[in-house]
Amino acid sequence: MNDSIGIVETKYLTFAHPPNEILLDSGEKLGPITLAYETYGILNEDKSNAILIVHALSGDAHAAGYHEGSAKPGWWEGAIGPGKAFDTEKYFIICSNIIGGCKGSTGPSSINPKTGKLYATDFPIITIRDMVKAQRHLIDYLGIDKLLCVAGGSMGGMQVLEWMATYPERLKSAIPIATAVKHSPQQIAFNEVGRQAIMSDPNWKNGYYYDSELPAKGLALARMIGHITYMSDMSMEEKFGRQRKNGKSPFKFSIEFEVEGYLHYHGDNFVKRFDANSYLYITKAMDMFDVSKGKPLNEVFTGLDAKVLVISFKSDWLYPSYQSMEIVKACKMAGVDATYCEINSTYGHDAFLLEMESETHLIKHFLKKVSNDYEVADEYEI
Amino acid sequence: MNDSIGIVETKYLTFAHPPNEILLDSGEKLGPITLAYETYGILNEDKSNAILIVHALSGDAHAAGYHEGSAKPGWWEGAIGPGKAFDTEKYFIICSNIIGGCKGSTGPSSINPKTGKLYATDFPIITIRDMVKAQRHLIDYLGIDKLLCVAGGSMGGMQVLEWMATYPERLKSAIPIATAVKHSPQQIAFNEVGRQAIMSDPNWKNGYYYDSELPAKGLALARMIGHITYMSDMSMEEKFGRQRKNGKSPFKFSIEFEVEGYLHYHGDNFVKRFDANSYLYITKAMDMFDVSKGKPLNEVFTGLDAKVLVISFKSDWLYPSYQSMEIVKACKMAGVDATYCEINSTYGHDAFLLEMESETHLIKHFLKKVSNDYEVADEYEI
Repeated sequence: MNDSIGIVETKYLTFAHPPNEILLDSGEKLGPITLAYETYGILNEDKSNAILIVHALSGDAHAAGYHEGSAKPGWWEGAIGPGKAFDTEKYFIICSNIIGGCKGSTGPSSINPKTGKLYATDFPIITIRDMVKAQRHLIDYLGIDKLLCVAGGSMGGMQVLEWMATYPERLKSAIPIATAVKHSPQQIAFNEVGRQAIMSDPNWKNGYYYDSELPAKGLALARMIGHITYMSDMSMEEKFGRQRKNGKSPFKFSIEFEVEGYLHYHGDNFVKRFDANSYLYITKAMDMFDVSKGKPLNEVFTGLDAKVLVISFKSDWLYPSYQSMEIVKACKMAGVDATYCEINSTYGHDAFLLEMESETHLIKHFLKKVSNDYEVADEYEI
Repeated sequence: MNDSIGIVETKYLTFAHPPNEILLDSGEKLGPITLAYETYGILNEDKSNAILIVHALSGDAHAAGYHEGSAKPGWWEGAIGPGKAFDTEKYFIICSNIIGGCKGSTGPSSINPKTGKLYATDFPIITIRDMVKAQRHLIDYLGIDKLLCVAGGSMGGMQVLEWMATYPERLKSAIPIATAVKHSPQQIAFNEVGRQAIMSDPNWKNGYYYDSELPAKGLALARMIGHITYMSDMSMEEKFGRQRKNGKSPFKFSIEFEVEGYLHYHGDNFVKRFDANSYLYITKAMDMFDVSKGKPLNEVFTGLDAKVLVISFKSDWLYPSYQSMEIVKACKMAGVDATYCEINSTYGHDAFLLEMESETHLIKHFLKKVSNDYEVADEYEI
């Protein structure tokens, strides 16, 4: 744990000041809103070293370090800490759980103030922009005018793109990783079968399951489907091959191959830490996301005065490189200073959580350049 | 219907002669066995023009032509008929439903003679070799000593490979299409989530559902997952893009995009024509398939005196071309006369049912060559 930020705590911000609700893209209002968030490192005096990390589908505010008594680090421990890509000795790192989530921020498993009961599927449909709008409130609360960077992979990357499109004046730089300006029909299709797995579980009960048995089988199955798409054919071959589970199975359709055991293990574990309704709301937000909102894509980032580093991974077939190249193209056409790098990885989509050495190299260099520019700009202002 | 074989009928062969059962790879015996099959064209006098067509996961004996009163042709109508790839004016075409299936051949929805009830999951585990063994009985019954060709795609291709490995003396040629010598962990994983979808349906009841409600939701979901893997990212983009379904959905997690509607439609339709237990048994047979049976792959086809045409499709990510190249390599190392062709298609795995022009060109030419060789060989024998 020498290179870890160490023990950290999740904090909670409830937007109490009026308006204590936000207007969602759907037209509905949501409030009061609580955001769970963590921070690492120290905000400097002129508040110019703040970096917002945004998480993927199953992520949370706990991006780095360890919670008291737990041996499990945050989900991007390899990228955030002293001397790491997001160097906590230089930068002030913020990560908040998205709205719609189930890790401390307001979501379908929160109490609906209108009824005093949990929202369940009375929770309104939310968008990636709604998530970002809530994050902006947190950044306001922390007194940060301009983020040095906003960075994230997968659905985190969608939030990065939304920050670039909606709050360009609040960003000095952005790092969208393994993501897309909008979901392809294949991406929608995989999310839809996951949702169907949950909604076909009789325990789901239209979402009103919180006081009874959970739709565990459905959620586990959704996660199993997801897991296949996060790995590459090659990484599965390297990890499992056709290895059999030890011991003869009691039933003819029991788990037989290691790869099946792996999927079941991760599916069953996911149920312990994630809410099925959140899975529905968040995947729906991903599917509906289109950063262009009907505009030509090349106009979306016009006027964005931020440096952009776009990263993709060669074996990622869920968010293939051509989708990252679309981001780069849109940036270039809008005159934005964008750099693109495809990392040669075999890990598939999971690579954004695993290819630490390559990512660290790219991100460190990029942030150094952005920070220096910032200091120079400050001097000019004097 | 000018180029169709026209009206056809399914026939049934019950292996009545002793032994009226076959010994399965599992060590269990299965019998009596009925095979549903169809034939098109005329068997010539020396019985040298017979071609066996073997079907994929959801296929059946009805490969070409039309059943009386039906407007729906057989599953490979584009490839089988007068003047087509498998020319019914030249060749005698046979196609039988596999054992384990649900289209007339003995399977889990057949009557178990020991109990007088339907087998359900008392049906024994079957392998690709068991399927092929049953087909061999049919070929014996038809009095055919040597098949001019055995051809099929996907799981059909696995049966072709098994014919090559187990009954090499019965083949003059073979065409394995879009297939593999064994499933990769990714292929196993996709089958396993399909099986889990079925077995998680409370109506499945360990397979004993035939006198109650069917596990329709589970089977539909399994089919939806399968369908995603049969198409390519590009073919989905071309077919659906991000087009929305007409009309506002009544519920927030209802079908919203065209691609979702397509998957639901095909999932729901599949339930009307397929048995969930058959889906379990057949996918298990595919996952367990390994044509090498533990031998080095280059020894598997040693001694096979048949011409082999291996076909794959560029955008097929479920059975990628590298798997077809493994077949070619194994043939070449065993001294077998094998030709390989990768067809440049965007259709994904479905291409073997759709790329009729390219397939026809390749197969016609190949069969002509094989037939001529056959005639020459006959002359030598005189």
